[in-house]
Amino acid sequence: MKSGFSTSLKIGVLGGGQLGRMLIQEAINLGLELHVMDAPNSPCSKYAAFYTEGSILDYNDVLAFGKNLDILTIEIENVNTKALFELEKLGVKVFPQPHIIELIQDKGLQKKFYSQIDVPSSDYVLVDNKSALISHAAFLPAMLKLRKGGYDGKGVMTLTSEADLKDAFDEPCVLEKFVDLDKELSVIVARNEKGECSVFPIVEQEFNHEANLVEFLFSPADVSAQIQDLASKIAIKIIVELNMVGLLAVEFFLDKKGALCVNEIAPRPHNSGHQTIEGNYTSQFEQHLRTISGLPFGSTDIIQPAVMINLLGEKGAEGLAYYKGLETIMSWKGVYPHIYGKTSTKPFRKMGHITIVNDDLNKAKELALKVKETIKVLGK
Amino acid sequence: MKSGFSTSLKIGVLGGGQLGRMLIQEAINLGLELHVMDAPNSPCSKYAAFYTEGSILDYNDVLAFGKNLDILTIEIENVNTKALFELEKLGVKVFPQPHIIELIQDKGLQKKFYSQIDVPSSDYVLVDNKSALISHAAFLPAMLKLRKGGYDGKGVMTLTSEADLKDAFDEPCVLEKFVDLDKELSVIVARNEKGECSVFPIVEQEFNHEANLVEFLFSPADVSAQIQDLASKIAIKIIVELNMVGLLAVEFFLDKKGALCVNEIAPRPHNSGHQTIEGNYTSQFEQHLRTISGLPFGSTDIIQPAVMINLLGEKGAEGLAYYKGLETIMSWKGVYPHIYGKTSTKPFRKMGHITIVNDDLNKAKELALKVKETIKVLGK
Repeated sequence: MKSGFSTSLKIGVLGGGQLGRMLIQEAINLGLELHVMDAPNSPCSKYAAFYTEGSILDYNDVLAFGKNLDILTIEIENVNTKALFELEKLGVKVFPQPHIIELIQDKGLQKKFYSQIDVPSSDYVLVDNKSALISHAAFLPAMLKLRKGGYDGKGVMTLTSEADLKDAFDEPCVLEKFVDLDKELSVIVARNEKGECSVFPIVEQEFNHEANLVEFLFSPADVSAQIQDLASKIAIKIIVELNMVGLLAVEFFLDKKGALCVNEIAPRPHNSGHQTIEGNYTSQFEQHLRTISGLPFGSTDIIQPAVMINLLGEKGAEGLAYYKGLETIMSWKGVYPHIYGKTSTKPFRKMGHITIVNDDLNKAKELALKVKETIKVLGK
Repeated sequence: MKSGFSTSLKIGVLGGGQLGRMLIQEAINLGLELHVMDAPNSPCSKYAAFYTEGSILDYNDVLAFGKNLDILTIEIENVNTKALFELEKLGVKVFPQPHIIELIQDKGLQKKFYSQIDVPSSDYVLVDNKSALISHAAFLPAMLKLRKGGYDGKGVMTLTSEADLKDAFDEPCVLEKFVDLDKELSVIVARNEKGECSVFPIVEQEFNHEANLVEFLFSPADVSAQIQDLASKIAIKIIVELNMVGLLAVEFFLDKKGALCVNEIAPRPHNSGHQTIEGNYTSQFEQHLRTISGLPFGSTDIIQPAVMINLLGEKGAEGLAYYKGLETIMSWKGVYPHIYGKTSTKPFRKMGHITIVNDDLNKAKELALKVKETIKVLGK
């Protein structure tokens, strides 16, 4: 037996959210038992083969959790990287590697990196605080993003004119020039220890701009073969230049002139790959586990076109979550709910997602609209 | 919200084997948290949201486990039914109902039941012990099945001639006339509390007659529309006559003259439905959870033809299990391993299964043969 496949391989995951939960579901198929660390009562707490309560931001907690593992991965970037560097020295395989997580934790460093490796991304300036923004008023309209700590649509705001500056973040930020947007696209690429890459087909994301979260995802994206090809090449270039092992999601802007530029990257399973569970031969979660464990890649081919809807907590609803309309949509063919098991809801919280598959993407889109109108996450 | 869908519904499962494990994987998608009881270190022990160590054959253990649940189901028939009758009185919804489990526990009662409801099954005689068999020597060749306690190919033997009688079981048995077999088929049907039924497409099973276990399963079966229709009707008739709520697998013999007769039934997710996980819109495990929880049925339509192979412990191999060739088959498109997480292997033990999907069933069959040659469960 090659050392790669052993069900006794000790694989750890920092973070116990929904991404970790979907990793566990796939790990069960492969007989791999995951060790997960996060706060008590996370979505993973009841399902990890081994669950450790601890803070993923705490040096000692991460070190203690990781030191007896063979492989350590993440399902969220916001972790203690100092401990990860230490674990790497101790011989634990940390995938993605700590230097990559550090880069991702800082959106400013990310932007510099794209320039260094000559990958297109939107124009930007780095600012240290609110007062520094004033001198860049001519740069507006633009997006203002916290360099550190933003997540799930938080830490991002739109600055249309100088009048918006008074409410701006007063922390180190990236100010990004608006792109005259046609579509938002995403490519997920995996790279193993041998340096081999495997790319998922490109998908298209439609955002809810109030929440800065994906409202609909379409697989495959309706773009030309040239755009698909270029996006795949850029995604591969980034993961190769990072020398990364694991799964990387690369989000793109396609502007109205047909030019592609990188928006953001995430070195882990990503919201823009959830439809792969039902829609593709191999899910992004399984691919991630295969990649970090030294197993062969699975086929990324599409089985059926798919639409994915994030199930966000309804505006104005808080408290114990309940899923109005869930029974109704469950009676529709090709509609797959994924409820993340979070006890309480709040506005725009990611409470689950729903994938709709159909031979015909347009029919999947029609059904997705019906699903969207029917299901609501309310509080009681 | 209808009372049916609540993620706080307390659903229990007696038995912590691979079927329970696959129920848990689906329950996670629906946000349903399962309570499972079985011995320590079962395949479910690390994955049930709530795991209770106990004996599913012990009256007190089953009663204590069940009394705070809303719904209780099984993943193996060999459970304490006396406690289940008591729990039913206490208001717990026990699906399948205890009287059905009792019937299923006794293959003799099963045969009588088929006669009562006028469903075709093979000719048989009931015998109390080995000496009673002598007077039925003229009935050979036949299958001898223990009335109680047989499982996974155990408790079944072939009696070809009088010479075999000396090794026969010396317990109450059913002696079943050999059927001049063309194919073995299976239909899975679900029935909810309202009495509505939902049927999965018919599948074909090819047995390893040394182990009395399924070697290959083909979905869909290569049979005429009339046979499909008749088998579905018989399956529905049985579940209706049982007044059962839950999932029922009905295994059939199709003889060389084209006549269909019932072989055995199982009131739970079944080995002959494993391919539904990847091959059908709704898996048998999800359908079972939907049915007992009062949720709507999912579509049973086939997405892609599939072949399922049971991954049995290799003859002559015992000890700590390892999966030779698993990495190789994982690189083939449409090949899905399901490893059950059993630490040690022994000859013919069900260690996992593998599903192969392809648009063309013949191509899936070819690939399945390659998979079968490549993967072995060995001990070390």
